[in-house]
Amino acid sequence: MSLLDQERVKLWALQKIIGDELSRFDAVYDGLVRGETPLIEEVCAHVKQGRSKRFRPTLLLLTAKHDAPTPSEAVLCAACVEMIHTATLLHDDFIDEALTRRGLPSVNQAWGPATALVMGDYLYSKALDCLSGAGLHEALRLLAATTLKMSQAEMMQIETRHDLALTEERYHDIILRKTASLIESACAIGAGFNPAASRHVEAYGEFGRMIGFVFQITDDIFDFLGDERRLGKPTGQDWEEGRITLPLIAALRDAPAGERERLLGRVSALRGAARAEAWTEVRDFVVQHGGTEYARGKAKEYGDRAKTAITAVATGVQRDLLVVSVDYVLRRLS
Amino acid sequence: MSLLDQERVKLWALQKIIGDELSRFDAVYDGLVRGETPLIEEVCAHVKQGRSKRFRPTLLLLTAKHDAPTPSEAVLCAACVEMIHTATLLHDDFIDEALTRRGLPSVNQAWGPATALVMGDYLYSKALDCLSGAGLHEALRLLAATTLKMSQAEMMQIETRHDLALTEERYHDIILRKTASLIESACAIGAGFNPAASRHVEAYGEFGRMIGFVFQITDDIFDFLGDERRLGKPTGQDWEEGRITLPLIAALRDAPAGERERLLGRVSALRGAARAEAWTEVRDFVVQHGGTEYARGKAKEYGDRAKTAITAVATGVQRDLLVVSVDYVLRRLS
Repeated sequence: MSLLDQERVKLWALQKIIGDELSRFDAVYDGLVRGETPLIEEVCAHVKQGRSKRFRPTLLLLTAKHDAPTPSEAVLCAACVEMIHTATLLHDDFIDEALTRRGLPSVNQAWGPATALVMGDYLYSKALDCLSGAGLHEALRLLAATTLKMSQAEMMQIETRHDLALTEERYHDIILRKTASLIESACAIGAGFNPAASRHVEAYGEFGRMIGFVFQITDDIFDFLGDERRLGKPTGQDWEEGRITLPLIAALRDAPAGERERLLGRVSALRGAARAEAWTEVRDFVVQHGGTEYARGKAKEYGDRAKTAITAVATGVQRDLLVVSVDYVLRRLS
Repeated sequence: MSLLDQERVKLWALQKIIGDELSRFDAVYDGLVRGETPLIEEVCAHVKQGRSKRFRPTLLLLTAKHDAPTPSEAVLCAACVEMIHTATLLHDDFIDEALTRRGLPSVNQAWGPATALVMGDYLYSKALDCLSGAGLHEALRLLAATTLKMSQAEMMQIETRHDLALTEERYHDIILRKTASLIESACAIGAGFNPAASRHVEAYGEFGRMIGFVFQITDDIFDFLGDERRLGKPTGQDWEEGRITLPLIAALRDAPAGERERLLGRVSALRGAARAEAWTEVRDFVVQHGGTEYARGKAKEYGDRAKTAITAVATGVQRDLLVVSVDYVLRRLS
């Protein structure tokens, strides 16, 4: 069993608790991610075939969980959050010219960039149309603000591509908008449907934002340390595509000046295939100068902050489950 | 003076009536289409430099016009409609690999496809975020539904690319979603802010939908008959890029079977540069077999339906202005 499978098993244990809600989510998502024309239907079927871990819907349904049955509006919101997430993946894969996604050919690879672009637009606007049609104004407000932030983050990533002077502060701002904001909205929306949590929507949002930081930073660490078996993809993708992430930022900041300048002199100007050749050197520099260790510490710090935020407001089984979900994301690191 | 300039003068005469509202629109639009980072700011400035005719905001502000000052919410909606329109142009230009837009390099040409994609997402989500933040739920509902239709239309266009068996019915369904739906929403939203019109929002929407059909069909006719001076772009673009439009659909349907089969035999399988070479033959076939004439008749028919819809509900100066706006779109044909 690969580590990826183990990871799924652990998430699965958590998801068992909300098995009924996730089944309802699956049905709603399946009903929405389908199309009015043969091509839309075909691409939707392909997208659904690449199974998602349903991490964001899981958090939304966990935060919404209460004694009473979870209302269908919460399940619909979970489906819309997942659709927005899927839409961003389609656009991201186009931008990164990714060949695969979730073990299948990416949509841009299989149907071309125009289809990837329009299907992203389709899923995104369909999610907002559903929320609006159902009168879910607060969820719509949160998610419209979130998608704006996500597009700002994409622009920031384009702007800071290859920028080895990127600061931790700016990296933080990018991943806040790119990853943390959607998970924050998922948790805040879930809490809004929960009579025991709706007075604490901000704290639930804070919890989601912190877990989002953990999620993105661990992903960025994986790109340095993960092996192909673990992630199903090779390391060094971020470096090759010019995305500068926390482990490299920290190593460049903390390394002795002489060594930093030596590395920068060799790799700053590399583009294309030459970047891939320099990967081992970059990775070794990052590990040697504590970049991955620093990022790991930051992930743990955000994990602690997520737990602090949620233990202050949640109670009973729900609190335990949400704390475990932080450990699930952190555990990917060990 | 080129015909394009004449066209602007006539629209300008109409726009003079709502000069104050358009000034307010300009200020709001200018304030919204700007960015949080240098690159967003740069692309926004470029987008604003290519002046739009502001056709959709004009209709929204004309339908909203009443004795009392137009509320700032209506002006905000006009800006959001224009932002959504601009977002679709960025994505369209990417799909069509367009080199220019409004006399300037297209965003995909100047900054690359990734920036065009993300800036489209940015403008679109910013428009919805504004509407949501302002609590304009009804406008948001109409525009979320509209953008979903627009993405469906894009998928239909990808699906029917090069399809010479495309029927008028399906063409009609595509342009309903692609063009008419946004103009319909603009007019329905405007009417909703107008105490004299808010009971007739459906009729105002019908008016907008019909004028949208006129707008798209005249554009499609221009692609056959317009000259470079008139449109600022060469004819035959739709044919070259595989978009099958009403004049060709009608000519293929109405031509004698023998001539139709002869043309289809020669041009059906052409792709790339060979399509451009066949353009004169295709255009002559379309004109000879009444395709442009049929489309012109259809445009006039929709224009009449727009006038009927609006004269039934509007009164006084507003009715006259809206009738004139139909003539403005139709007049482009003569």
